[in-house]
Amino acid sequence: MKKKICFIISSRANYGRVKPVLLEIKKDKRLELQIILSASSILGRFGDIRKILIKDGLHFNDQAFVVIEGDTPLTMAKSTGFSIIEISTAFKNLNPDIVVVTGDRYETLATAISASYMNIVLAHIQGGEITGSIDESVRHAVTKLSHIHFAATQEAKKNILRLGEIKKYVFNTGCPSIDTLKLNKKKLKDVRDLLLGVGNKFDYNKPYILVVFHSVTTDYENSYNYAKVLAETIDKLKHQVVWLWPNIDSGSDEISRCIRQYRESKRLSNVSFFKNFSVDDYNSILRNALCTVGNSSSFIREGSYLGVPCVLLGLRQSGREIGKNVIFSDFNEEELLKKISNQIKKKRYPISYLYGQGNSAKKIKNYLAKLEPNIQKKLTF
Amino acid sequence: MKKKICFIISSRANYGRVKPVLLEIKKDKRLELQIILSASSILGRFGDIRKILIKDGLHFNDQAFVVIEGDTPLTMAKSTGFSIIEISTAFKNLNPDIVVVTGDRYETLATAISASYMNIVLAHIQGGEITGSIDESVRHAVTKLSHIHFAATQEAKKNILRLGEIKKYVFNTGCPSIDTLKLNKKKLKDVRDLLLGVGNKFDYNKPYILVVFHSVTTDYENSYNYAKVLAETIDKLKHQVVWLWPNIDSGSDEISRCIRQYRESKRLSNVSFFKNFSVDDYNSILRNALCTVGNSSSFIREGSYLGVPCVLLGLRQSGREIGKNVIFSDFNEEELLKKISNQIKKKRYPISYLYGQGNSAKKIKNYLAKLEPNIQKKLTF
Amino acid sequence: MKKKICFIISSRANYGRVKPVLLEIKKDKRLELQIILSASSILGRFGDIRKILIKDGLHFNDQAFVVIEGDTPLTMAKSTGFSIIEISTAFKNLNPDIVVVTGDRYETLATAISASYMNIVLAHIQGGEITGSIDESVRHAVTKLSHIHFAATQEAKKNILRLGEIKKYVFNTGCPSIDTLKLNKKKLKDVRDLLLGVGNKFDYNKPYILVVFHSVTTDYENSYNYAKVLAETIDKLKHQVVWLWPNIDSGSDEISRCIRQYRESKRLSNVSFFKNFSVDDYNSILRNALCTVGNSSSFIREGSYLGVPCVLLGLRQSGREIGKNVIFSDFNEEELLKKISNQIKKKRYPISYLYGQGNSAKKIKNYLAKLEPNIQKKLTF
Amino acid sequence: MKKKICFIISSRANYGRVKPVLLEIKKDKRLELQIILSASSILGRFGDIRKILIKDGLHFNDQAFVVIEGDTPLTMAKSTGFSIIEISTAFKNLNPDIVVVTGDRYETLATAISASYMNIVLAHIQGGEITGSIDESVRHAVTKLSHIHFAATQEAKKNILRLGEIKKYVFNTGCPSIDTLKLNKKKLKDVRDLLLGVGNKFDYNKPYILVVFHSVTTDYENSYNYAKVLAETIDKLKHQVVWLWPNIDSGSDEISRCIRQYRESKRLSNVSFFKNFSVDDYNSILRNALCTVGNSSSFIREGSYLGVPCVLLGLRQSGREIGKNVIFSDFNEEELLKKISNQIKKKRYPISYLYGQGNSAKKIKNYLAKLEPNIQKKLTF
Repeated sequence: MKKKICFIISSRANYGRVKPVLLEIKKDKRLELQIILSASSILGRFGDIRKILIKDGLHFNDQAFVVIEGDTPLTMAKSTGFSIIEISTAFKNLNPDIVVVTGDRYETLATAISASYMNIVLAHIQGGEITGSIDESVRHAVTKLSHIHFAATQEAKKNILRLGEIKKYVFNTGCPSIDTLKLNKKKLKDVRDLLLGVGNKFDYNKPYILVVFHSVTTDYENSYNYAKVLAETIDKLKHQVVWLWPNIDSGSDEISRCIRQYRESKRLSNVSFFKNFSVDDYNSILRNALCTVGNSSSFIREGSYLGVPCVLLGLRQSGREIGKNVIFSDFNEEELLKKISNQIKKKRYPISYLYGQGNSAKKIKNYLAKLEPNIQKKLTF
Repeated sequence: MKKKICFIISSRANYGRVKPVLLEIKKDKRLELQIILSASSILGRFGDIRKILIKDGLHFNDQAFVVIEGDTPLTMAKSTGFSIIEISTAFKNLNPDIVVVTGDRYETLATAISASYMNIVLAHIQGGEITGSIDESVRHAVTKLSHIHFAATQEAKKNILRLGEIKKYVFNTGCPSIDTLKLNKKKLKDVRDLLLGVGNKFDYNKPYILVVFHSVTTDYENSYNYAKVLAETIDKLKHQVVWLWPNIDSGSDEISRCIRQYRESKRLSNVSFFKNFSVDDYNSILRNALCTVGNSSSFIREGSYLGVPCVLLGLRQSGREIGKNVIFSDFNEEELLKKISNQIKKKRYPISYLYGQGNSAKKIKNYLAKLEPNIQKKLTF
Repeated sequence: MKKKICFIISSRANYGRVKPVLLEIKKDKRLELQIILSASSILGRFGDIRKILIKDGLHFNDQAFVVIEGDTPLTMAKSTGFSIIEISTAFKNLNPDIVVVTGDRYETLATAISASYMNIVLAHIQGGEITGSIDESVRHAVTKLSHIHFAATQEAKKNILRLGEIKKYVFNTGCPSIDTLKLNKKKLKDVRDLLLGVGNKFDYNKPYILVVFHSVTTDYENSYNYAKVLAETIDKLKHQVVWLWPNIDSGSDEISRCIRQYRESKRLSNVSFFKNFSVDDYNSILRNALCTVGNSSSFIREGSYLGVPCVLLGLRQSGREIGKNVIFSDFNEEELLKKISNQIKKKRYPISYLYGQGNSAKKIKNYLAKLEPNIQKKLTF
Repeated sequence: MKKKICFIISSRANYGRVKPVLLEIKKDKRLELQIILSASSILGRFGDIRKILIKDGLHFNDQAFVVIEGDTPLTMAKSTGFSIIEISTAFKNLNPDIVVVTGDRYETLATAISASYMNIVLAHIQGGEITGSIDESVRHAVTKLSHIHFAATQEAKKNILRLGEIKKYVFNTGCPSIDTLKLNKKKLKDVRDLLLGVGNKFDYNKPYILVVFHSVTTDYENSYNYAKVLAETIDKLKHQVVWLWPNIDSGSDEISRCIRQYRESKRLSNVSFFKNFSVDDYNSILRNALCTVGNSSSFIREGSYLGVPCVLLGLRQSGREIGKNVIFSDFNEEELLKKISNQIKKKRYPISYLYGQGNSAKKIKNYLAKLEPNIQKKLTF
């Protein structure tokens, strides 16, 4: 009987990062791939990935609607609870041998808890990293519930071991998102969705800046003000700008509200706004950007491999291991403008293997096929 | 304005352990005590504590019914999810400054998650200990979500620091359950509820053995067999026995089923069965037992202070720091019988301060009054 | 492709009543039978039917744990909500053509709502009857959500039509529980479970009285007092008594508490208490009882066909069509004693076809196979 | 002690219709007004009413986030279940004497069920009407759970009586939405929000057509196609158009998708799109429209009083009592265009009192103050 490996995909970005692993597992005769789609991955507003997934030759076994709309700390907590209820049902029906989760979002934690109480072995990708926001605590809590750890960097692996995890189940495989990057051949001019934005009409022949700005859940009350500094700055740039809507998180409504107000007063006329892109499209846009601005982890992770200059804003990623391509800025218009201008001048930084060399998927797949950890964990230092 | 300190009480045992802290906080003018009752603490089957709490001079601000009946890994996971949903509402209404949780049960984890996503400072009592069952992973996950840590032993404090928590917020206060023990003056003959059991009529003048046996969630399929070995052994004892029903956990139905079958075949006629006791009653019964048998953490924690001989069964407490009063036994009738007999001969072990000296409550209260940790945590080694 | 007919079974009593229909559907080649078990039907405390169902040659497609423990109006409401959430998932997975519900309990209403919003045709058994308790409102609300109606009596059919339902979808099929009765050949002496009760040892050779007493949800605060009058009366009877624990409802905990108190004071020594029986066992016990006392609808429904004398208590069944075998009594010890004594003298009433002649299952099955109502309903008078 | 009257407001439209009743109750010394906001009434996407409510001199006692995002029949069912869970908690905390609900949406049903199982008297506004969609069944199910009925028309009152409700608790008070209309003095030129739409810039000096189109839940698969016919037609109109986004319902995502596609291909350039208006703004826009097109019940209800010509589309309102201002059209471009053109020529129809004369609020308030129905209902014909 095949070993059943179950992935929970909770957003388009999440899908992008694990796709190479999914494809590897699908090819392996010893393994049966199970996919559960949940959270924003099946919501039109945030980039429904169901058609993309099928076009990529995969299929999903179940889907769980778990987002309690409201975009406040309260609904974020409740969505976590509701996720546990719904994901547990899916596990009951699919009966997986190993559940694999990625990252540090509330859906990750919810899945980890379902698996834990249902006595299913849990594997975690992207544990051990250090950042800001509530994601920081959640990521390490997930580590404490996981049996197998696929760290993306050497430092992350060390952190997981320091957290008392069992050495033989902790690996630095690099991040599969680098595999995704390497596989991506799409040229910018083939990213037709760049024509479907709201606002400025994107011009393929002109350079552009990429902006992604998520709220910081532990500081969500300032989301509006932070967005305002960013919008004010972006409005002053000469370049055209590609701006992605924020994740579904506490505070993201405040960011949207700010953007809407600027648009209503006819500002930000240099910006094309987008709800979501397919993984390949996003990677092309990232690869070809003059510079990135905001707080997306992709600017650090994929960005370091690509050498795209980045101006990182605020606390959300603070603490994360960064390549040379990243410089920090406060929420200060003047500082921000200057740093963007400096980064643009750098053009490209040299390639960095900090987050992997693009061969993670196969490693992860092989460990999943081979390992049989005891369901009973124990702290070991 | 007073600092609002909110306790979530989820069982009669849990209440017993934190009662001294609650009473200390109630007396402090700087603090406002909030109490939320949840899980089995408000269910008749498992020992509803509402009247006891009021008799103790306390009152509760809210109550949350969160147990999804079924007693399987699936319902345990779902109860966790449902707890998050319900506890979050209570937090919205009470708006506490600090939430305090104890131990390692699913309600503890659920509360920790609600507090985390709602940006409320979280304090944890009894973190850093090492045991078996899913409790082990859950306890450390709660540590990773907590801002303030009140460890019960020196070793537990060390473990919490090793897990990367910030030193100035980690304390060995001892366990408040030792305070409870010290305050308890109740004589066995005043424990009138010993007459209300099912089965054998308890005789106050004869020595007795105390049995508490919970299921091990990570091994819940064997619950029935383990209970059978235990029942077979207990049935052979000459002494009268006080046996408490198990916690509401995956597997506890199997244990109940086993006990019922023995009773139906007129076995276990030396046993009086009980659903629950008040904290003071339980402590008296523990203090006066010839010997304890099973896997209750009270046998280790309170038992070490009292010096009551204990035969510890199975994995649930494996790894936990134990005093000299505890010896382990396998699920083997012969071994078990022999070890019980040996322990009875020891009468009493010397007092141990392993889990505290009985002055924890005041320490914990003072730290809660004083500390103002940053809501944004960060791994630090 | 077969037409998928999905039954939701929510208790052992519910199962008993629809079993003949299930068996008929299973035999029909045009139909695919789907069974979802929910609520108390899968809870040990209330009579887990999973093994019985399999012994009966059936199997279940899904099971839903939906009971939020607490036994208060609040938890009853929440269990309804949680049922909708869980049953909806099962419908998503099973994709039935018609959903069939029975009766008037919260699980019935929850199922009806899931089906309604998911655009599934709903058939209802036992609509149109008139009783007390919240069941009364719920039953008619379910009628308004249903497309096909299988009334158990002529009067019930009339009521459904008066409620504005479409004539060609309303049938008096009689109640399938009468089919169950007719199929039952079990002799009392073969009901071995009568030996497994708590309390008095049942004697097969002596006559007995059957007591079933559920709480009235719209009057749940008096549950304890009502139970007290009943217990006081039963304690005075000379006959042995078979007493079944109440349903899982608001107020049932109060009834249990009352019974427990009587038992603790060594009263009710003529009573054997039981948690649950299989359908066949229950029907044998009902058929052979001297007299029935309480408020179970089976005393009216099956009882009228069997002619077993009944003393009906309180409001729960008030308004329901009754046969001659039923007389009412207030919660008054003297009146109750006298009426029980009078009924016993009657021995047996003549058979009544009020609730059907025992051929309902086939009729219901055929209608389910044939009918294709429009999903869009419209009030019609 | 004051009698506590609790309203559940679930959308901006719902608020608009009951506002006069809320204000009446607030003024009455015998009554305490409680308001719970839920569903889309607190979601930015659908018109958060919290600030409006406070500006109107009211305040809310609680808010419940109950929308499970997804916009499918499954999530609609689950949102109903989740609403029951959340609203029940609010009832536990507020302990109202009477709960008042309006209309026929899933939040209405959820509230009715919470109140029913929690033994709270339920009053229903807008029962007894006949329409299409699942709303039709839900409305009558709510009637069967309600104790007091405030029908909006004479025919609706008759229907409620035919459904077996008790005569002395059924009233034709007229619809409070007509009171709202009468109170509204706002001039179109003061509706500044008409400048904040997306798409065409609204011109106050030119006539306009008002479009509101909701999905039909029992036919949600055709939502996209229906929206297409409508969009195609509207695109051909010479007049400027004010188009409101649909309710949060199964199928509304499909309608949004269709609109977005038309906009992306630069069609519908005569249309200004809006997410929501305050009640007063909406009423001004309705009052001044050349003609209304779509399936909003406001076109019938408020529209008949105002005499605004309406072309009604599809089944959602089919069966509803209509004034002379309404004509029906199929989803056929040619027919639709012609009927719009004919209606525009009519200018205004005479005032109709079909849905009330604008004095409902006081009547409803007085009945709520006076009536004390028995919580135990019983079918009566």
